[in-house]
Amino acid sequence: MNRERGGQGREAGTALAHLHAVILAGGRGTRFWPLSTGRRPKQLLRILGQRTMIQETADRLTPLVPSERRWVVTGTEHAVEVARQLPSLRSAQLLVEPEGRNTAPAIGLAARYIAARDPEAIMVVLPADHVIRDPAAFQRALAAGAQAAALHPVLITLGVPPTRAETGYGYIERGARAAEFEGQVLYEVAGFREKPDSDTAARYFAGGNHAWNAGVFLFRAGIIEEEIAAHLPELARELRDPDLMLPGDRGARALAEVYRRVPSISIDYGVLERSKRTWVLPVDCGWNDVGSWSALGEVRVPDSEGNVVVGEATVLDSRNVLVHAAEGPLVALLGVEDLVVVSTRDAVLVCPRARAQEVRKLVEELERRGRQDLI
Amino acid sequence: MNRERGGQGREAGTALAHLHAVILAGGRGTRFWPLSTGRRPKQLLRILGQRTMIQETADRLTPLVPSERRWVVTGTEHAVEVARQLPSLRSAQLLVEPEGRNTAPAIGLAARYIAARDPEAIMVVLPADHVIRDPAAFQRALAAGAQAAALHPVLITLGVPPTRAETGYGYIERGARAAEFEGQVLYEVAGFREKPDSDTAARYFAGGNHAWNAGVFLFRAGIIEEEIAAHLPELARELRDPDLMLPGDRGARALAEVYRRVPSISIDYGVLERSKRTWVLPVDCGWNDVGSWSALGEVRVPDSEGNVVVGEATVLDSRNVLVHAAEGPLVALLGVEDLVVVSTRDAVLVCPRARAQEVRKLVEELERRGRQDLI
Repeated sequence: MNRERGGQGREAGTALAHLHAVILAGGRGTRFWPLSTGRRPKQLLRILGQRTMIQETADRLTPLVPSERRWVVTGTEHAVEVARQLPSLRSAQLLVEPEGRNTAPAIGLAARYIAARDPEAIMVVLPADHVIRDPAAFQRALAAGAQAAALHPVLITLGVPPTRAETGYGYIERGARAAEFEGQVLYEVAGFREKPDSDTAARYFAGGNHAWNAGVFLFRAGIIEEEIAAHLPELARELRDPDLMLPGDRGARALAEVYRRVPSISIDYGVLERSKRTWVLPVDCGWNDVGSWSALGEVRVPDSEGNVVVGEATVLDSRNVLVHAAEGPLVALLGVEDLVVVSTRDAVLVCPRARAQEVRKLVEELERRGRQDLI
Repeated sequence: MNRERGGQGREAGTALAHLHAVILAGGRGTRFWPLSTGRRPKQLLRILGQRTMIQETADRLTPLVPSERRWVVTGTEHAVEVARQLPSLRSAQLLVEPEGRNTAPAIGLAARYIAARDPEAIMVVLPADHVIRDPAAFQRALAAGAQAAALHPVLITLGVPPTRAETGYGYIERGARAAEFEGQVLYEVAGFREKPDSDTAARYFAGGNHAWNAGVFLFRAGIIEEEIAAHLPELARELRDPDLMLPGDRGARALAEVYRRVPSISIDYGVLERSKRTWVLPVDCGWNDVGSWSALGEVRVPDSEGNVVVGEATVLDSRNVLVHAAEGPLVALLGVEDLVVVSTRDAVLVCPRARAQEVRKLVEELERRGRQDLI
């Protein structure tokens, strides 16, 4: 540890010069219907305000990762819109998956391309559709994590201190203290725990030894490739296909071939949970995965009546309502409570805040009715 | 009475041949916002389904009053739309008021034009924006009322048997039995009572001697002119202006002059309540004045969950909701109760059914914000 802290200045600069960001933008998601649809998933929407979620994700990498070291993995159907929303991204940095195969193939593919560009590359992998209310704290964590990844052959996961006994997230159990960079302490991972039952979640929350898995990872490109080779050898073999690096259509055809064969599996389940060299970097940065419309009430400051409005609304004599009317007709509320109301040009959603998680039921019902145009 | 019943067949034919309908379509109204606006008041809207309320009002006159004996009184700003919605109406039958002056001038003006066309004319005056669920019963009442008006120099008001102790309507107290035509009994009016307090309304409802004033009147054109002359002499004098009968612009200019001077007063307050020769014709015809969005639940048959949908909606796990989405985005509801939800291209309304009467508060708020484009 002394060595690390002593050499900090020069090593930090070296690590950061090799830091590449990989934004995972493959999500489809119906939980933000009617704003999100198959054509426009959550990460491409202005759910919170002026910028889309992928734009906010890219914005908060500045100045840590300049745009020439940012990569985006997305699907065919969203590539054009991603490029439009991130105009400084060069086309070579947009990795277009022919079909969704969960996070392990996406990260493996990015590692292959990035390692070809920079053999010393450190990758920070991050979802395109989360909110971070304290970007400075987030950047300090990334800087520390990049240095740790430069010096140690480990897979680092950002861990968010729980603020409630949430049963919907994955938890990381903290083990022995492993390292410290710029005041940020990293720990060995004692275990990953997927979505616990409520008693277990309450215990994790009370114990203080568990963190939420925010889906943000740091590692050297070469290390994640080694770990994929160890735990997902089939995927590693496919990703070694030399044709993948061909330019233009030939590379795209090779990728389509590879993706027909690779398993659909998450990096958490496929690699992290099986790896022996995982660290966790706890960071309190106001993280929110914005999992449903009810998150509007967590990531925006409500008015004195508890109401949150994105877009234009007239709200009279109402309390604790969440309104999104930025892309549809004005919303006018009188005398209602605890509702989510979302308007778009095509559809209007009204449901209780407590049931915002169930919005997919409406999407399923519309699908049954053959209203694919709306979903 | 014997004489009337004996001569029924021939006299009925004579009376009906002179029956003219006057549809009052001057209303503005904000109670159906956001569907109704200054530009498109309630009577010009498809609040209940495929036809607008003025179209349904005209439809239910068929075959009793053919289109050449139908007249519509409306305002300058709505004349073009009325003509569009009632294409069989000739322009001479569209009486365009330069400004709204309540019902007495509108009816007096119509009487003047109709009497000039047919000195024996009998007028049935009816609002353009009410619902009648039993048009056959309504037509039987009109036929009987027309015969009564042909034979008696009286002002007849249709009286609707109350179905609740409503405080928002005017009531007519029934006096002595006056006549009977085709099984329909008419009574002298013992008194008109405007919007009673709730105790009085409860008494009226329990007593069975009071009827709601539906705003539908029957009288000879000459008789209403006599009564206007007796009780509103100033209005009668203005309406005698010979220039009113000039064709084209000259007639319109005379009307504008006259309307600058006539009092703004209702036929109920200005004439009926003061007249000594008023009859009431009770008729149970499923009348509803559709006073606010909550009326959707009265004039349409709800589904098994108590929900009423006009237009397209997806309603899951919800009860007693009233939805109007015929002119705006699809409405999707999950887990809500007792709400009114209305979508248009410009605005979405959400409020409890019990507060639908207060929608004007939202309109006032939008007015304060300078959003005249929406109201």
